[in-house]
Amino acid sequence: MQFEQQYGVYLSDIEKTLEGFLPIADEPWPANGVPQNLSQAMRYSLLAGGKRLRPILLLASYRSKKDDFEVSLPFAAAIEMIHTYSLIHDDLPAMDNDDLRRGKPSNHKAFGEAMAILSGDALLNLAFETMAESNHPYALKAIRQIASRTGARGMIAGQVGDISMEGKAPDESMLCYIHQHKTADLIAAAVLAGLALAGSDEESMDIGKKFGYHLGLAFQIHDDLSDILGSETSMGKRVNKDKEIGKMTWPSLHGIKESQTAADFHLKTAVQSAEMFGEQGQFLMELAQHTFKN
Amino acid sequence: MQFEQQYGVYLSDIEKTLEGFLPIADEPWPANGVPQNLSQAMRYSLLAGGKRLRPILLLASYRSKKDDFEVSLPFAAAIEMIHTYSLIHDDLPAMDNDDLRRGKPSNHKAFGEAMAILSGDALLNLAFETMAESNHPYALKAIRQIASRTGARGMIAGQVGDISMEGKAPDESMLCYIHQHKTADLIAAAVLAGLALAGSDEESMDIGKKFGYHLGLAFQIHDDLSDILGSETSMGKRVNKDKEIGKMTWPSLHGIKESQTAADFHLKTAVQSAEMFGEQGQFLMELAQHTFKN
Repeated sequence: MQFEQQYGVYLSDIEKTLEGFLPIADEPWPANGVPQNLSQAMRYSLLAGGKRLRPILLLASYRSKKDDFEVSLPFAAAIEMIHTYSLIHDDLPAMDNDDLRRGKPSNHKAFGEAMAILSGDALLNLAFETMAESNHPYALKAIRQIASRTGARGMIAGQVGDISMEGKAPDESMLCYIHQHKTADLIAAAVLAGLALAGSDEESMDIGKKFGYHLGLAFQIHDDLSDILGSETSMGKRVNKDKEIGKMTWPSLHGIKESQTAADFHLKTAVQSAEMFGEQGQFLMELAQHTFKN
Repeated sequence: MQFEQQYGVYLSDIEKTLEGFLPIADEPWPANGVPQNLSQAMRYSLLAGGKRLRPILLLASYRSKKDDFEVSLPFAAAIEMIHTYSLIHDDLPAMDNDDLRRGKPSNHKAFGEAMAILSGDALLNLAFETMAESNHPYALKAIRQIASRTGARGMIAGQVGDISMEGKAPDESMLCYIHQHKTADLIAAAVLAGLALAGSDEESMDIGKKFGYHLGLAFQIHDDLSDILGSETSMGKRVNKDKEIGKMTWPSLHGIKESQTAADFHLKTAVQSAEMFGEQGQFLMELAQHTFKN
């Protein structure tokens, strides 16, 4: 199967899975369901489309070891729920104060701050519930790969670093800290959860870790560059905002050209890692490269 | 062992366990640890004392079936992390806007809104990480008992109900919905997770469910009454606030006397359920009654 075709299959499976975990209630306060307004707020952000990079990475990482990737779908859905909750909370006025996300009003602009806080909380909880309900024999292993990278020592540490450094003098080691935790931890978590579910050995986990972290760093530098070079229409969110609020980014520290070189280096290292999975790593290699095409 | 003595043992074990999961970093941005300022914000709320009703319920429920309650300590810690995160987020300006909690400035008053949102997120994530890391053979069962009652169909649904109904005309069925989800779901989750970890049969789970839900309802009505009858000093939080902001409570719907009768009914039903565990249910019975003594 060609890359684009396979990507389409994964994407469609993920959308269906996400939809399945969040059906619309037909009454405001169903006795055993999600309140209608909460469900609307959760769906608004979770089903807003996007490339679904993280869940597809999870599926493809599983697939690089085992064929029956459908069993990893609940975990792919969970990683997207975690990604979405983090965006909802990051956009809040007390945090990055972003009014636009994926070309639409951000969650708190559409539903108010209280619902945005609660729908984020609910998506994080649903992610863990979904994984725990999966009954996969390696569910706990996958949950550990994810939980250890999405919390206070992972993604949230990155966000704390990000907001703590706004307006401060650029600092190389702090920037690396933020990129690694804010972005690369979740991307690596997706890869490692997929591999763990497939019962991968330690060597494969090490390769996956290298692949995930370099891809994550490439991705964040690319994202920082897009904030400078992109247009609001193509990005679906405000651009040039990083500079306005004094955010520490790779281009602000190293300039555009050196940032492009750094992004290329991390991408190349990621692709070389995926190559070590042999033919089964082909899709992961193409996925990494595809991420930077538009 | 006498009740007070046993309570003291549980309490001391819980405090030590919580402390162990959140050590203080000796540098601002430890490479593999929690950022110092995030850790401070998490510890501020998590280690603020309190009766620790939910974790003690979890330990005692486990103990009603099996002796080695120490193995359930990570889950007891997790349920307190979830309780604490929910308080931090509930106190936020966009939600209940409470400045005082357990006699101290609430988390966002002490650390700012962004850190309060993130430390709440981090505590929820840490709860699931802690449970997944426990390696207990029934870990997934216990996680399911908890996750299904703390999310969009449980505790968060209750909070959504609570904020959606502020200032609206009292409504009996909506009030029951809020009490069940906002408070009783988490209390029942503690009981059922403890029982699940001990490998309890379905009959015991049913008894535990009845015990937990009636105790939770008694507890919430008692809490509503305290808001009217208590003093700010003894409560450690603002009183008479429910009425000021038009919150729907049991006393606002039924008056004080009938509310006391309802609280007594639920407490009695809870105690009768615990009685069905025989001698092993003695502590749970006393714990339920103890909860209403001060």
